[in-house]
Amino acid sequence: MPDILHRVGIKAPPDKVYKALTEEKGLAGWWTKNTKASPTVGAVNRFRFNERGFNDMKIVELVSGQRVKWRCVDGAKEWIGTELTFDLKPQKEFTILLFAQRGWKEPVEFMHYCSTKWAIYMLSLKSLCETGVGTPYPDDISIDI
Amino acid sequence: MPDILHRVGIKAPPDKVYKALTEEKGLAGWWTKNTKASPTVGAVNRFRFNERGFNDMKIVELVSGQRVKWRCVDGAKEWIGTELTFDLKPQKEFTILLFAQRGWKEPVEFMHYCSTKWAIYMLSLKSLCETGVGTPYPDDISIDI
Repeated sequence: MPDILHRVGIKAPPDKVYKALTEEKGLAGWWTKNTKASPTVGAVNRFRFNERGFNDMKIVELVSGQRVKWRCVDGAKEWIGTELTFDLKPQKEFTILLFAQRGWKEPVEFMHYCSTKWAIYMLSLKSLCETGVGTPYPDDISIDI
Repeated sequence: MPDILHRVGIKAPPDKVYKALTEEKGLAGWWTKNTKASPTVGAVNRFRFNERGFNDMKIVELVSGQRVKWRCVDGAKEWIGTELTFDLKPQKEFTILLFAQRGWKEPVEFMHYCSTKWAIYMLSLKSLCETGVGTPYPDDISIDI
């Protein structure tokens, strides 16, 4: 099954990136401003994008400073059941972030679109961690028509 | 085998995007300034990135305004033999571009990195076609450490 994969180097320590991936304020600072989130395994984080839809992500695994794993439990039908991982490792004064969204059934056009959008959000996360300012939805770079 | 997939909507006609994917001036305007290219099936386009390496792409297929296909014949070892396609279709006053780099042997960390970089270059291509100015290497967004 096809996967979406990304990697970014972020000039910040892993703990700072981990907070941005787990705390409500952090997530709202790079993915979507309309976020309800809790840093607790088993909790369901809720991400809202107005007319662009929504995603509910169940937190499957948390390893402080190292790993965040979600399972999509509601939202776009192609996303439901996919698993999203954020793996962090320190390198010099940077954090290497490996992102994956696995479990897509088919490499549909929407998957191509989501791959590009995830890269845009990884850049937003990088900016948030490095400068304090990200570009969460609705301030994200548009690739829509 | 894992693939890199992306999709962007570009506010320009397909012929304009096709030129940016086939002519030397176009390619040098979004991917790398150091480009030698010819819009001819069988030719080998040469892309140079200083210390970041190089890629030689044999042009496998050209369908004017619709499709460009390359095979990587030299460069990073993980890239050699991979096939890259750019498929264009008009939608209202936009062009939808579907990009793929297929034939990766393994989903190595370098593939994650290239996926994110391809998204960055797709945004550069979009900018070039819409505004006349892209961000080719070495002006591209850095995600390195």
